[in-house]
Amino acid sequence: MNANLKGRLIGVGTGPGDPELLTLKAVRALTEADVVAHFAKEGNTSNARRIVDGHVRREAIELPLLYPVTTEIDRAHPDYHCAITTFFDRAAEDIAIHLDAGRTVAVLSEGDPLFYGSYMHLHVRLAHRFDTEVIPGVTAMSGCWSIAGTPITQGDDVLSVLPGTLPEGELVRRLGDADAAVIMKVGRNLPKIRRALAASGKLGRAVYVERGTMQNGRTSLLAERDDAPAPYFSIVLVPGWQENVQAKAEAAE
Amino acid sequence: MNANLKGRLIGVGTGPGDPELLTLKAVRALTEADVVAHFAKEGNTSNARRIVDGHVRREAIELPLLYPVTTEIDRAHPDYHCAITTFFDRAAEDIAIHLDAGRTVAVLSEGDPLFYGSYMHLHVRLAHRFDTEVIPGVTAMSGCWSIAGTPITQGDDVLSVLPGTLPEGELVRRLGDADAAVIMKVGRNLPKIRRALAASGKLGRAVYVERGTMQNGRTSLLAERDDAPAPYFSIVLVPGWQENVQAKAEAAE
Repeated sequence: MNANLKGRLIGVGTGPGDPELLTLKAVRALTEADVVAHFAKEGNTSNARRIVDGHVRREAIELPLLYPVTTEIDRAHPDYHCAITTFFDRAAEDIAIHLDAGRTVAVLSEGDPLFYGSYMHLHVRLAHRFDTEVIPGVTAMSGCWSIAGTPITQGDDVLSVLPGTLPEGELVRRLGDADAAVIMKVGRNLPKIRRALAASGKLGRAVYVERGTMQNGRTSLLAERDDAPAPYFSIVLVPGWQENVQAKAEAAE
Repeated sequence: MNANLKGRLIGVGTGPGDPELLTLKAVRALTEADVVAHFAKEGNTSNARRIVDGHVRREAIELPLLYPVTTEIDRAHPDYHCAITTFFDRAAEDIAIHLDAGRTVAVLSEGDPLFYGSYMHLHVRLAHRFDTEVIPGVTAMSGCWSIAGTPITQGDDVLSVLPGTLPEGELVRRLGDADAAVIMKVGRNLPKIRRALAASGKLGRAVYVERGTMQNGRTSLLAERDDAPAPYFSIVLVPGWQENVQAKAEAAE
């Protein structure tokens, strides 16, 4: 390693959970990395770190980036924004120290790094300063519709990816306006999501996937699932293609 | 192999083009498959087949599924629908012969099999009759935003995936209603897409990606690209996160 050369930053998508859904490129990056960084909550094992077990070199430096404890701060409050911004600033500087020393740093990101991932906060702080590569990964939603065996979109379908945190009326409007939809951040929003799907006439074909591509994952029609809070890593799928098939069949009658 | 046992159908996502973006699971499926099927146009090499070169066993049976020549038929005409349906029916039966003989059949699908892929036409015809597995892949859009280094969505962003074939007014309305957007099927629709982005105030940050994750891929701001027809495998990205950052910055002023 030449200490005069700056190191390389690699955002590594680890896929949705199944270690076999790592790409060959991600595995190569991990075996070459001098430093492996991953986001985690204090006291919790990071999912992304668990996924790559067995591919990280024994001599690699592990760099856990511990999210600040913000559970007691309202997310809309400026203090929350400030705590998070400070955290990402510091995490970027921790990584920059290794990059300045000429080390290759792999930052793990569950799913795909630039699709709702924490990695992008580091990317915007570091990519203009260091040689950077992003290795895309299989998204959680792809993992979920594959486990469920649910074709999601075909032909000219419009797909909407919606957070379950949206107000109910907004969910109804957007579900009515899309051929296919993926609803993320289900958790405690499940009863609201169910009402919105019913109001938009799409509850009947909505599929609920809990912990997709993890070992304890399960799939069911949402209509058959009760209203108990769902785990954070749950997704509701509304296949679009089925609608077209049905619409065409009805038009042909 | 026990000829009394039915074979297994595997929909294999090959990712967006770079052979290193194959998953470990896809590679394993390919090395185990007795038959490797792939969609192709007469006289053309299939992209998906090219991606997996080097992973297919020498003794595997190759089963190209050749799309019918439908270029002279209007897509809205019933003859087109009939030609395509007949093609998928026959392709499914060709595969069923191998499955009935106890062979494992891998069907290649560029990107992710259940996301705008031809594989799903076989899935709905065969999955209820045979043991079936779908191996998700990195989508073309993930490949594109990673190559471009463009964070696409964060937090509670709504993402819309839109076909460039939509009428202009419809594109304007949907672009105005989404935080982030991906526009597929760019090709000859590029001038219309540009006008729609301008009308919705999002042209300035739209990113054009040509042949993402292929060797001859290139990236530019759409505003800097001329109106000549784009290749079929082109995508326009409208990052959502940037909007929030800007909106927050403006609100803070």
